[in-house]
Amino acid sequence: MTIQTVSTNKAHDGIQGVYRHASRETQTEMTFSVYVPQHNAGAKLPVVYYLSGLTCTHANVTEKGEFRSACAELGLIFVAPDTSPRGEGVPGDPANAYDFGLGAGFYVDATREPFARNYRMWSYVTDELPKLIGEHFPVDSARQSILGHSMGGHGALTVALRHPGRYRAASAFAPIVAPSQVPWGIKALGGYLGSDRQAWRKHDAVALIEDGARVPGLLVDYGDADQFLTEQLRPELLQVACEKANIPLTLRRQSGYDHSYYFISTFMADHLRWHAERLTG
Amino acid sequence: MTIQTVSTNKAHDGIQGVYRHASRETQTEMTFSVYVPQHNAGAKLPVVYYLSGLTCTHANVTEKGEFRSACAELGLIFVAPDTSPRGEGVPGDPANAYDFGLGAGFYVDATREPFARNYRMWSYVTDELPKLIGEHFPVDSARQSILGHSMGGHGALTVALRHPGRYRAASAFAPIVAPSQVPWGIKALGGYLGSDRQAWRKHDAVALIEDGARVPGLLVDYGDADQFLTEQLRPELLQVACEKANIPLTLRRQSGYDHSYYFISTFMADHLRWHAERLTG
Repeated sequence: MTIQTVSTNKAHDGIQGVYRHASRETQTEMTFSVYVPQHNAGAKLPVVYYLSGLTCTHANVTEKGEFRSACAELGLIFVAPDTSPRGEGVPGDPANAYDFGLGAGFYVDATREPFARNYRMWSYVTDELPKLIGEHFPVDSARQSILGHSMGGHGALTVALRHPGRYRAASAFAPIVAPSQVPWGIKALGGYLGSDRQAWRKHDAVALIEDGARVPGLLVDYGDADQFLTEQLRPELLQVACEKANIPLTLRRQSGYDHSYYFISTFMADHLRWHAERLTG
Repeated sequence: MTIQTVSTNKAHDGIQGVYRHASRETQTEMTFSVYVPQHNAGAKLPVVYYLSGLTCTHANVTEKGEFRSACAELGLIFVAPDTSPRGEGVPGDPANAYDFGLGAGFYVDATREPFARNYRMWSYVTDELPKLIGEHFPVDSARQSILGHSMGGHGALTVALRHPGRYRAASAFAPIVAPSQVPWGIKALGGYLGSDRQAWRKHDAVALIEDGARVPGLLVDYGDADQFLTEQLRPELLQVACEKANIPLTLRRQSGYDHSYYFISTFMADHLRWHAERLTG
């Protein structure tokens, strides 16, 4: 699999790159960013995958996430994919909706038409992208972790829950924890997967935990001034599920914070330290 | 003077705000951002002014500058104005040039028409804006400093050199140090001030130093992969001027860095620590 370099910039002693490749899964060009901190020649570094939220591309976190300083200090590679396929012929015009289609892939493999051909973000982030990263960057594939924001928090939680042992840490900023129970999720899972709600459970963190999925622990931050908190995010549902399942959940209510990158960037270094403790021990 | 709040977001325990006001100097609405870290009620904090480069607004550094963590730690207010007047009737279409007119005020008071009415960025950043900030934010006006990038580095250096005693620290990322001698500066100073090169000397850091202006010290970083280094920036001219004038200059050549915010954000915390040592001692 070949990749094309869109740009590289030195930052915090490492290299922030943006890359493009022809994706087998989405049948489109996909763009992603990778930060590789300074490291000894031949070293293999732990890798953190960051899944972004609705409307975002790789660029939002790359520009506003304030992760490079911590990644440089902790020796972490940071990978940020796009949130959906894009390009000519891809269904889902963002002019029609910000919460479905382009910029809103919801980290599932669509089964409904006309989305099934391109909207394969689950396979993209769990299979194609990690292989590509392993081929082209100095990662230690035994030391992976995942985090995300909002829709990407949903992605990070479900990916970790369904790959026990693969991700040494999982955390989220303001995640959608129970998409089957909230408007964004009902629209997306219904639109991509159809009306059989049984099929949604594999893409719902709370349902996965209810159905027996386990992780060694989770870190979740949310802001109590988040405009989406009570209708779309509902962290209390994750809290109840984790308590019943004895999953150690560190759930932090951050006073005065909203849903934006001002919130994410504030706690990014904290999350990366939490990941590093589990990746580099 | 009244200001209108465009947005506020909690970040790193403080408040990142964006504000708008009707400027007396530019005869336009001007937008600026202010970060106020968490502080004790009634406290007055030191304030750092950041002047941005060509094509930028307040938003570039506000989103990509990675200054809030350091400002929160050091107790610094951070103010970022726009780089030119904008709006209906303001001459200087950015479609015509990225390096003159909109987004390229060069921190001078224009004397040539049609720019003289609106392009008064010198008076705006040295007089109107500090007064406005002093009225609306908890700043200690006895503890101000200034820094900037590229065109804004030129602004920071010239503003500090012409206000001995007012700014306790001045620093720059990849500044234009001698606009009278480089294409960007010759175009801008000629366009705003006319062909009398004597009038340019008050807006040229190297010329100001040659003419006797002094500051207690300067910190300047530049990247050796900066595409504008040899034609537009020419830090060696500042080095020679400072040596002759016995101005302590810390001039750092940063290997592999370019002209972007990836460079600025890497060294931002360093600069803010250098400012804090001089502002909070």
